[in-house]
Amino acid sequence: MQLTKKNLEERLNHVYDAIVIGGGAGGLSAGIYLQRYRLSSLIIDKGKARSFWMQELHNYLGLPPDTPGRTLLQQGKNHYGSLDGDFLNGYVEEVVDEGDTFAIRVKAGRQNSTYPVFRSKYLIAASGIIDILPPLDDMQNVYDYAGYNLHVCLICDGYEMIDKQCGLFVGSEGSIETAFPLSWFTPYITVFTQGRFEVSEEMRNKLREHGYRLVETPIKKFLGEHHQMTGVELADGSVVELEMGLISMGSRYHNTYLEALNLERDGGNLVTDKMGRTSHPRIFAIGDLKVGINQVVVAASDGALAATQIWRDIRRVSGARRWEENLVLPV
Amino acid sequence: MQLTKKNLEERLNHVYDAIVIGGGAGGLSAGIYLQRYRLSSLIIDKGKARSFWMQELHNYLGLPPDTPGRTLLQQGKNHYGSLDGDFLNGYVEEVVDEGDTFAIRVKAGRQNSTYPVFRSKYLIAASGIIDILPPLDDMQNVYDYAGYNLHVCLICDGYEMIDKQCGLFVGSEGSIETAFPLSWFTPYITVFTQGRFEVSEEMRNKLREHGYRLVETPIKKFLGEHHQMTGVELADGSVVELEMGLISMGSRYHNTYLEALNLERDGGNLVTDKMGRTSHPRIFAIGDLKVGINQVVVAASDGALAATQIWRDIRRVSGARRWEENLVLPV
Repeated sequence: MQLTKKNLEERLNHVYDAIVIGGGAGGLSAGIYLQRYRLSSLIIDKGKARSFWMQELHNYLGLPPDTPGRTLLQQGKNHYGSLDGDFLNGYVEEVVDEGDTFAIRVKAGRQNSTYPVFRSKYLIAASGIIDILPPLDDMQNVYDYAGYNLHVCLICDGYEMIDKQCGLFVGSEGSIETAFPLSWFTPYITVFTQGRFEVSEEMRNKLREHGYRLVETPIKKFLGEHHQMTGVELADGSVVELEMGLISMGSRYHNTYLEALNLERDGGNLVTDKMGRTSHPRIFAIGDLKVGINQVVVAASDGALAATQIWRDIRRVSGARRWEENLVLPV
Repeated sequence: MQLTKKNLEERLNHVYDAIVIGGGAGGLSAGIYLQRYRLSSLIIDKGKARSFWMQELHNYLGLPPDTPGRTLLQQGKNHYGSLDGDFLNGYVEEVVDEGDTFAIRVKAGRQNSTYPVFRSKYLIAASGIIDILPPLDDMQNVYDYAGYNLHVCLICDGYEMIDKQCGLFVGSEGSIETAFPLSWFTPYITVFTQGRFEVSEEMRNKLREHGYRLVETPIKKFLGEHHQMTGVELADGSVVELEMGLISMGSRYHNTYLEALNLERDGGNLVTDKMGRTSHPRIFAIGDLKVGINQVVVAASDGALAATQIWRDIRRVSGARRWEENLVLPV
């Protein structure tokens, strides 16, 4: 059920089989599988998963290719609720490993916040990432286009960019490298650094050799209407016309609650086995937090795998149930 | 486009980037990703994927939990077609590794069959498995209930069996072991061997200790109506009432076309890396053919991963595209 400040009290003495942090595609899929495995679960969601911002999911098997990400999330939340899973809107502040259980402290409610502590045997970290967007004075101007034709994922949206005039918005020299796989879809690439870092001579030469333009003047604003970006106006008043944009400025990981647990990482991502288990035997990581490609269908699969492994673990400890009425009594 | 005997001729001189064998969840998801990566692909489907038989998909994120498997497949096929992927109904008879390409011989058409040979750089084996059903004289009697409340997948349908009187239909002593994980959902288990093999004393004792019933008399027929199985009638005329059934008789692998290629296996399943690559660098295996759990959402994710890796391979060989008009001419 949906937990609120009013009814969550009764869950504070319960030890859940698994608490899932994050109610995006991975977390919801995990929750659906957990509940169908007769395990008790709680999803704690801070809201606005990365897929919430996707205007159209073009590559998710089973859904029409213009389905908004939020429709998938709402369907998943309804599905999970129909299986009697608990769902709480809140922000996880701390996870303490108590040995057999985790104590998970949540900030619930933006005003007059309370800080309930929930307990579980297993933890699934499914809180994902969020893309860093170009920092402009008026961020609403960025939000007007991000997720429409100002994309953040080459795998998801490269197809939409085929042979289009494309702006690549980067935050570091490393992310300029995205231009080269992007050229698979379109060679008409203009790289925008906003002058935020120094571009090496080597990279300048490489861009020049490929014919890609480099613009270092800060961006004043994106131009366009009806969520269709048509170019950028620079600080010097000049305009660069574009048909598409790809933002490649890195991501923020929603994982501060994991910091004290010293899990094995590869860069910013958590290392897991094939079932999603991290270096901690009772913590699983799924979706964008783990090593792998960041795709909705992959996160959904990750959720199924992690829930299955947790079920196997718990089932093996509890052993098989007997049909009591049929037992032959010892003579 | 949909290939037919009439129009397939024009594709025989084409080398596809990837041919996908199998048009189930994994193959369709792979095809959608391949086409969105601007790779040319052909899906060859013999029809009636395992998910085609699923009356209700209860655990696929994004779809209402009463969605028939065939609805998912039809949506996926439409999606793939909208991306201009080629689709052929046919049965793959042979795959020959020619070094840089594969030659794939297909039987097309049940009557007046033709045997066209298609070529591709990469191969995705996505042809899955099919469950072995209890062999009765009247197989239509089995089909009447299979996929309704006579299930084949404990992970998918255990939830439907909670505390129900459940028949477990097995084909070997090994598959009797399914009774113990099944007991997580219900302990009211009756194992049916149909007398097809000898049950060891050890297993008899184990079943007895758990209170599970063992029936070795052959089954005459399933009882029920409107696709709801309510029990079985045995050869001796006696009736065992049931509310649910689980068939655990193993699977047939649709992989004879791979036999000559000597791919690494674990039991019947192909061993792959995280992206689905088999021991052959240009053959990927996804879904139920590979090692892992047999779930629709996992197969869909597998398809995304395999297509992504093939794109990376091909892209790296071809190198980045240049914006020709912008190239600085050498002095």
